[in-house]
Amino acid sequence: MIIDVHGHYTTAPEPLGRWRQEQIAALDDPTRAPDPAGPRISDDEIRASIEANQLRQMDERGIDVTVFSPRASFMAHHIGDLATSSAWARICNDLCHRVAELYPERFAPAAMLPQSPGADPSTVLPELDRAVHELGAVAVNVNPDPSGGYWSAPPLTDRSWYPLWERLVALDVPAMVHVSTSCNPAFHTTGSHYLNADTTVFMQLLQGDLFADFPDLRLVIPHGGGAVPYHWGRFRGLAQAMGRPEHAEALLRNVFFDTCVYHQPGIDLLLRVLPPDCVLFASEMIGAVRGIDPRTGHHFDDTRRYVTNAGLSAEALAAVEEGNARRVYPRLAARLP
Amino acid sequence: MIIDVHGHYTTAPEPLGRWRQEQIAALDDPTRAPDPAGPRISDDEIRASIEANQLRQMDERGIDVTVFSPRASFMAHHIGDLATSSAWARICNDLCHRVAELYPERFAPAAMLPQSPGADPSTVLPELDRAVHELGAVAVNVNPDPSGGYWSAPPLTDRSWYPLWERLVALDVPAMVHVSTSCNPAFHTTGSHYLNADTTVFMQLLQGDLFADFPDLRLVIPHGGGAVPYHWGRFRGLAQAMGRPEHAEALLRNVFFDTCVYHQPGIDLLLRVLPPDCVLFASEMIGAVRGIDPRTGHHFDDTRRYVTNAGLSAEALAAVEEGNARRVYPRLAARLP
Repeated sequence: MIIDVHGHYTTAPEPLGRWRQEQIAALDDPTRAPDPAGPRISDDEIRASIEANQLRQMDERGIDVTVFSPRASFMAHHIGDLATSSAWARICNDLCHRVAELYPERFAPAAMLPQSPGADPSTVLPELDRAVHELGAVAVNVNPDPSGGYWSAPPLTDRSWYPLWERLVALDVPAMVHVSTSCNPAFHTTGSHYLNADTTVFMQLLQGDLFADFPDLRLVIPHGGGAVPYHWGRFRGLAQAMGRPEHAEALLRNVFFDTCVYHQPGIDLLLRVLPPDCVLFASEMIGAVRGIDPRTGHHFDDTRRYVTNAGLSAEALAAVEEGNARRVYPRLAARLP
Repeated sequence: MIIDVHGHYTTAPEPLGRWRQEQIAALDDPTRAPDPAGPRISDDEIRASIEANQLRQMDERGIDVTVFSPRASFMAHHIGDLATSSAWARICNDLCHRVAELYPERFAPAAMLPQSPGADPSTVLPELDRAVHELGAVAVNVNPDPSGGYWSAPPLTDRSWYPLWERLVALDVPAMVHVSTSCNPAFHTTGSHYLNADTTVFMQLLQGDLFADFPDLRLVIPHGGGAVPYHWGRFRGLAQAMGRPEHAEALLRNVFFDTCVYHQPGIDLLLRVLPPDCVLFASEMIGAVRGIDPRTGHHFDDTRRYVTNAGLSAEALAAVEEGNARRVYPRLAARLP
């Protein structure tokens, strides 16, 4: 079984985007507020949006199951306030839940959180609980920068985040650390902000000791870990300079990297540098890079080709494509045959 | 001849740091202002600081010449205002000039600029001219984020930067794009802020068309290009999505990456993915990572070992270690035999 731990509902039916536009407009003009019950989207509309897109490509690539969360760039936690994010997260999480209800063998839902700049992380707990207990979420996306490119939040090792980590451990749910849209003109959302966030968070974890306090917490760093595997010697050297020479590798008991790296040499490096037990197959399809590479004739984001061509042993390949995901996402494992 | 294009004076004699502390203290209490003429440092003090450190390791590693600039993390353009940065840049540039005067065959000076948050980039031109014409600077370091981790400056493609690019072209001097200390607690200076900046700037260049306006401008992105080579497929795919499928590779006529990547797999990836004509040998020794890797018995930052072990042809290796640097840094070439 092939499990993709990183898919977003980037093809949601148009009423979702229209609802969000109205919600944003209502921040200035409350008369424009959309229906609090959310957009009206039929099951047929959902089926059409999935079958022509993610499901078709999953079938073409031999992907059995995708962990499916709301569109990352649309989380946009910097817009409005906590109430804005709470309403938006609820609607987006409900939609991913409906996808998974329609295709229970092909999609497992993951949730976004109603984060907001300056809001205490504990404010997300009710939606987290609802997503896990009522919607069947098997994972959650945590945004380390709700400001959208201004990085005003404290590092993830700060005590203010602890209520979230405590609850995730209690629920036995992993978190993917994933930023959203950059509204800072210095950063392109998918070209630099996403990758920078991955690198930033790994270094925050290397500076701290979060897993001494939460030995069962599991964090997934997407996009192949940003710059981390490419600079693995740098991180090992920095750990040594901090007097903890084994700390970078020790983090790999709790930190996992996905395979959203869109060319063969990148995947080869990832799997050469890091032990296969900490790498999780993923493609983020349909996401930031949707085109076909004219050099290969295949989609840039068809990461399965790169992973299967990376020269792993059968055992290691099975861990990356299935076993690790079952271990890191126990609520996913419980849904699978 | 082996040329290292990325060295900083991280071992400057102690009076330099004391002078800076007094300058910072004087921002609150003008009576504490240091001597405007700068710290008193003898030639013998400079020799001791260089011969026991950079020069010793250059000899051990077979590095003939280093392009030598002020300590990057000490540029700290976010401190004080334009006058603060102007005095500090002048003193630091003078010191690197003195190193190169003492060892004219081993060091070529590069300059920092008196950048300051919110100050127009054209304000740096007098110091740039002085550094090139009076101090013999062969290159300059440009900080894309003078705010120190808050990224309040516009992208490098913004018109406000154009006076700087015009002058660099007129002087035939390349710029290394290098941030300084992060004062944002989210970012570790050398573990994430440096690498993020490298990735950020490459993406700014990919979004823009700077080299259509400045076909002779040459920018060096340090630290192996941050996350860029590891995610080269992503950048090619993003360029294609922007309707410019060849734009990522076209940038490599004007954009160069150094080899400050501190393990063999990273250097192998860099040299596998990018054409050797756009890679410049460098180590940033003595810099962020100073220790010995217990797995190899060699310094993490002894990048010459990785580069010579990467399987390049003799011709490509000579380009990376010498030829490209002579081409990109013509004022360096003019100093060399």
